[in-house]
Amino acid sequence: MKLLRVGTAGAERPALLDAEGTLRDLSGVVADIDGGVLADTAALDRIRAAADAGDLPVLDAQGLRVGPPVARVGKVVCIGLNYHDHARETGAEPPAEPVVFFKAADTVVGPDDTVLVPRRSEKTDWEVELAVVIGRTARYLESHEAALAHVAGYAVAHDVSEREFQIERGGTWDKGKNCETFNPLGPWLVTADEVPDPQALSLKLWVNGDLKQDGTTADQIFPVAEVVRYVSQFMTLYPGDVINTGTPAGVAMGRPEPKPYLRAGDVVELEIEGLGRQRQELKDA
Amino acid sequence: MKLLRVGTAGAERPALLDAEGTLRDLSGVVADIDGGVLADTAALDRIRAAADAGDLPVLDAQGLRVGPPVARVGKVVCIGLNYHDHARETGAEPPAEPVVFFKAADTVVGPDDTVLVPRRSEKTDWEVELAVVIGRTARYLESHEAALAHVAGYAVAHDVSEREFQIERGGTWDKGKNCETFNPLGPWLVTADEVPDPQALSLKLWVNGDLKQDGTTADQIFPVAEVVRYVSQFMTLYPGDVINTGTPAGVAMGRPEPKPYLRAGDVVELEIEGLGRQRQELKDA
Repeated sequence: MKLLRVGTAGAERPALLDAEGTLRDLSGVVADIDGGVLADTAALDRIRAAADAGDLPVLDAQGLRVGPPVARVGKVVCIGLNYHDHARETGAEPPAEPVVFFKAADTVVGPDDTVLVPRRSEKTDWEVELAVVIGRTARYLESHEAALAHVAGYAVAHDVSEREFQIERGGTWDKGKNCETFNPLGPWLVTADEVPDPQALSLKLWVNGDLKQDGTTADQIFPVAEVVRYVSQFMTLYPGDVINTGTPAGVAMGRPEPKPYLRAGDVVELEIEGLGRQRQELKDA
Repeated sequence: MKLLRVGTAGAERPALLDAEGTLRDLSGVVADIDGGVLADTAALDRIRAAADAGDLPVLDAQGLRVGPPVARVGKVVCIGLNYHDHARETGAEPPAEPVVFFKAADTVVGPDDTVLVPRRSEKTDWEVELAVVIGRTARYLESHEAALAHVAGYAVAHDVSEREFQIERGGTWDKGKNCETFNPLGPWLVTADEVPDPQALSLKLWVNGDLKQDGTTADQIFPVAEVVRYVSQFMTLYPGDVINTGTPAGVAMGRPEPKPYLRAGDVVELEIEGLGRQRQELKDA
């Protein structure tokens, strides 16, 4: 199923994009799409039954804002340098074990919302990423099979990054990853049953219409199942948590000088096979 | 005012510790203590008026668990190496600007709750810290005065840290900072008006009764006002967000071999002048 949330920011209603591409209202079935619903197999079964019966009200998609597909995201765990080609372009050795950093959940916005270039930013960069949404509480998982059983679904994430703040200002990467609006998510959460192989998805990102990133999750150093298993050794993952699993090559930082960092007025579009498309216009904070 | 939350985890009620040290029930005045209430001067005024009138019901403190003093913490921003003496003991140069990392809000527990030593942990360490609780949305603050005006209050935080996970496993520090139960907070949120100088507070931490940390916020490299101003340049701070402002010298990592890292059965107590005392027993995860 493709689950989403539509409406003005903070007042989204749950919806479903059906097999014909028609937007359907889920607010009669569940109050929202959040960790509680994603952990509730009975609620998911009710959604599925209503969708199969074809009796969900049609929503007019025209002019409707799409919000992030998960309400009240708990935390956003990010994996750095997780594609062979991206590690190469940054000049880093492929890491021996996953590199973990964080984005605050309050950076999550809708897939087509405005992205703000922070004040005093010279190096705002793009990163298309496969986001994993957790569906069951996960502690110390022991196998890849168990890890995938804790995944509710997948979505497109944009891990917007300010490279000077991230790398040149001391301390950890978090300083350049948490600016306001820095994590567009969506349009949909595609449930895990409809993504049979998360390691066979193409990821693309365009800036002002030019293709900048063109990768595949087959190139991930640590596949989704290993990322989820590994992270669960260090922290508890809860339903509604998100893991951004890294970006392929093609970011601004990896390009020759003058590096084409983002500026107000730029338009970024992102797409992952089967997971939908995002489009953000950049403005100054 | 000393605001707190008492009751079983997830079902705490708001309370106030009055000037006589009597616990009073606030649930007739506000539904909870959270970012919404901390940002709502009318709600805070109602609490203050009820406290002054002396007509809040008395709660029997006997056997009552104390929860974290803020419900639904948004994010926990942490400042690393922020005391001259702690920077020295770790062998690090004092940072030129604040070192920022994160704890997930789901690591926040009550001040006397059990702390879990993670599986495969050999280096679980202690850190007493002054926590700053944000009361107003803060973006790009321009002065120390403005920064302090965005602080709702202060509390004791225990920034429990696994040093191998933090330092020896690649990537950023976050891997060793986010294990379950790793951020006891409280017992109280003391409103900012009752902490005239956050740079003149003594901090102490004991393990099994032995004093291990004995510092003062006067030794902070970046004082609270600068920390809040600085962080607001990189991310938006929201009411209910917490900033852990760093730890003084005396952690296990800074001691001679064999370093006395924490084990199941150890008892850690923490105290900050005027902000109350915590006591945690350690157990294995």
